[in-house]
Amino acid sequence: MSTTDRAARLALAHLVEPGSRELGLLVRRESAPEALTMALHGVGVGEPLAGAVQARLDAAGLGPRTGSADAWTAHVADTLAAAMTQRAGELGARIVTAADDEWPAALDDLTRVSRDGDALRRDTDPPLCLWLRGPVRLDEVLERSVSVVGARAVTGYGQFVASEFAFGLAERGWTVVSGGALGVDVTAHRGALAAGGVTCAVLACGIDQVYPVSNSAVFERIAEEGLLITEWPPGTRPHRTRFLTRNRVIAAATRGTVMVEAGSRSGARNTLSYARRLERSAMVVPGPVTSAMSVGCHVELRTPGTVLVTRVEEIVEEVGHVGELAEPIHGEERPEDVLDATQARVLDAVAPRAVRTAEEIAAVAGVAGRDARRSLPVLEQHGFVVSADGGYRLAPRTRP
Amino acid sequence: MSTTDRAARLALAHLVEPGSRELGLLVRRESAPEALTMALHGVGVGEPLAGAVQARLDAAGLGPRTGSADAWTAHVADTLAAAMTQRAGELGARIVTAADDEWPAALDDLTRVSRDGDALRRDTDPPLCLWLRGPVRLDEVLERSVSVVGARAVTGYGQFVASEFAFGLAERGWTVVSGGALGVDVTAHRGALAAGGVTCAVLACGIDQVYPVSNSAVFERIAEEGLLITEWPPGTRPHRTRFLTRNRVIAAATRGTVMVEAGSRSGARNTLSYARRLERSAMVVPGPVTSAMSVGCHVELRTPGTVLVTRVEEIVEEVGHVGELAEPIHGEERPEDVLDATQARVLDAVAPRAVRTAEEIAAVAGVAGRDARRSLPVLEQHGFVVSADGGYRLAPRTRP
Repeated sequence: MSTTDRAARLALAHLVEPGSRELGLLVRRESAPEALTMALHGVGVGEPLAGAVQARLDAAGLGPRTGSADAWTAHVADTLAAAMTQRAGELGARIVTAADDEWPAALDDLTRVSRDGDALRRDTDPPLCLWLRGPVRLDEVLERSVSVVGARAVTGYGQFVASEFAFGLAERGWTVVSGGALGVDVTAHRGALAAGGVTCAVLACGIDQVYPVSNSAVFERIAEEGLLITEWPPGTRPHRTRFLTRNRVIAAATRGTVMVEAGSRSGARNTLSYARRLERSAMVVPGPVTSAMSVGCHVELRTPGTVLVTRVEEIVEEVGHVGELAEPIHGEERPEDVLDATQARVLDAVAPRAVRTAEEIAAVAGVAGRDARRSLPVLEQHGFVVSADGGYRLAPRTRP
Repeated sequence: MSTTDRAARLALAHLVEPGSRELGLLVRRESAPEALTMALHGVGVGEPLAGAVQARLDAAGLGPRTGSADAWTAHVADTLAAAMTQRAGELGARIVTAADDEWPAALDDLTRVSRDGDALRRDTDPPLCLWLRGPVRLDEVLERSVSVVGARAVTGYGQFVASEFAFGLAERGWTVVSGGALGVDVTAHRGALAAGGVTCAVLACGIDQVYPVSNSAVFERIAEEGLLITEWPPGTRPHRTRFLTRNRVIAAATRGTVMVEAGSRSGARNTLSYARRLERSAMVVPGPVTSAMSVGCHVELRTPGTVLVTRVEEIVEEVGHVGELAEPIHGEERPEDVLDATQARVLDAVAPRAVRTAEEIAAVAGVAGRDARRSLPVLEQHGFVVSADGGYRLAPRTRP
């Protein structure tokens, strides 16, 4: 009796909290079924991992072990996989693994992060599988996607920005990914939905959990038009540490992360930090320096590798293809823009009402008489000055 | 009859608009008296410069030339220098040149900027002399100085920030330099005065001109406690092009420039650009992306070589000596900060009211039973959980 890759992954997803680097390395080096066998029998894995698996087995009423090692692995895998597949069906959800076409390859970049020193302290390996609810294909909608994240305690300013950015991104065909939380997250989801776009909520709990409850209507709309996504099996409650683990998926799944508002301790900064370590675009919206909800934004903006964004166009320029450049901000054009340096200086020296000769104007401007005599007719042509009584004065409309 | 360096510089400052690179190079290569002779006789100088000098000579009633070349130079120099020295005395002002102890050497860095390609279009050479009004020594007060510049059309936000920053800088012994304009400039001057500090206004007109008139009371206080500074002789009116020429002095005189609010076309951006080209610190205060008065700030913050600042400490860290570091922003500390990753995970799995055994908690947390059994007493010691009936639940104060 052999265990399939899919059943082994589903079983491991049930038995081990997501992101375990130890387990991920084992799956990649051996295989998912072999890794499951090793974890179940405590062979070639650390005691904390083996113990954690045992605790979940016991809680699931599986065990103690019966039969051969392989048979036991197959039994556990089949039992858990069957239960999860059935539950997914009941919930209108599907389960995808790295073996499925729909799997987004971008998530595999998380294997790189899991190798850097800092990340050893946190669980950063790619998910083993994902539960999805929604009518669109995950790999396709993530092709052009941006995450928009930020504080729960959003201000009116943050709400405006999150809503405008999400709306504008969705309008341009970008998928807006966020975490389904109160504040910036739900505002971003709503903004994308308002534009008729696709939005994905990456949850830190089972796909059957509605957290926070006040977002339940939004979650239903997301499930109808976008995607609810999670790596935790149904029944799993959201925990503080799970939000941090989940954040790596938001960062890895998208081409870049935009942080809208964040206090100094905001979890959104954790997502942004993953984006930076994954070499995704780490974008931050500034705010008033007087706002506690922008303190985290400004600390990040003082960190190298962070891009300040103020408009949807600037986000698209960061994450889009070559050539999707933001139109530079020109400001209002002024009539004087057409003048060269000498002409501008001469114009400055023309008085509003008193008529001055070209020579007087030259002396005030600090230019040669000839340069004044050359510039004044040009200034008259452009309507800046008028000639009168052998001299010049400002044209009425030029007067300050 | 020979011409002194000082008299020649004063005469040249009268005859030529400040910043002329051609004249500056001539003064440095030859000498100020020799440069004056060449400019007066149109020898070895371009026609525009010679013509400009002639126009001012004519306007001053000096000329046509009489006597030998040297005698004519001496006559012009003495006449203009004497008039300016007398006028300075009448105005309670003094005139300093590069030969004086009080001259700030930092201004000579402008000779570097004047050599770069872009600047050829603008007049960026150092001033030939400066008119000063005020009781303090220019070189000494600029030793630790920062310029605070920005929009005339300041918002309440910009006023608050400019005022706070100037006050805080002055309080820490830093001189606040600005341009004496409406809006951010005058708010910064006032903030420094309020702290009992030194502030300098670098004007774009003669020291006898009061522009804008509504700032006259502030100018008087600056002249009593700080310095009014200008490179234009008395009687010179402020012109738009002069503001741009003046900005290079604000940037060069100080260790760094802080731009508080700026529309997309603000002249403050010109000062900031000089600061960057002079390798001074170019600092910008962010604001709401919805504010037109922060658009220029954000464009600059998207330009490499710009530092985002939100607090006085961060400005001092930029421009101060090694070791004047801003205290990092820590945010509120949380009791959970003391926990390690396993303990945090275990705590997340403890229910608020229902008592769970260590084994149940381990299964929920996804840790080994042994790790849960080790962590729970630590959590109890810290007051996060309480034991009851052979299990654990959250301590009342930990409940969300």
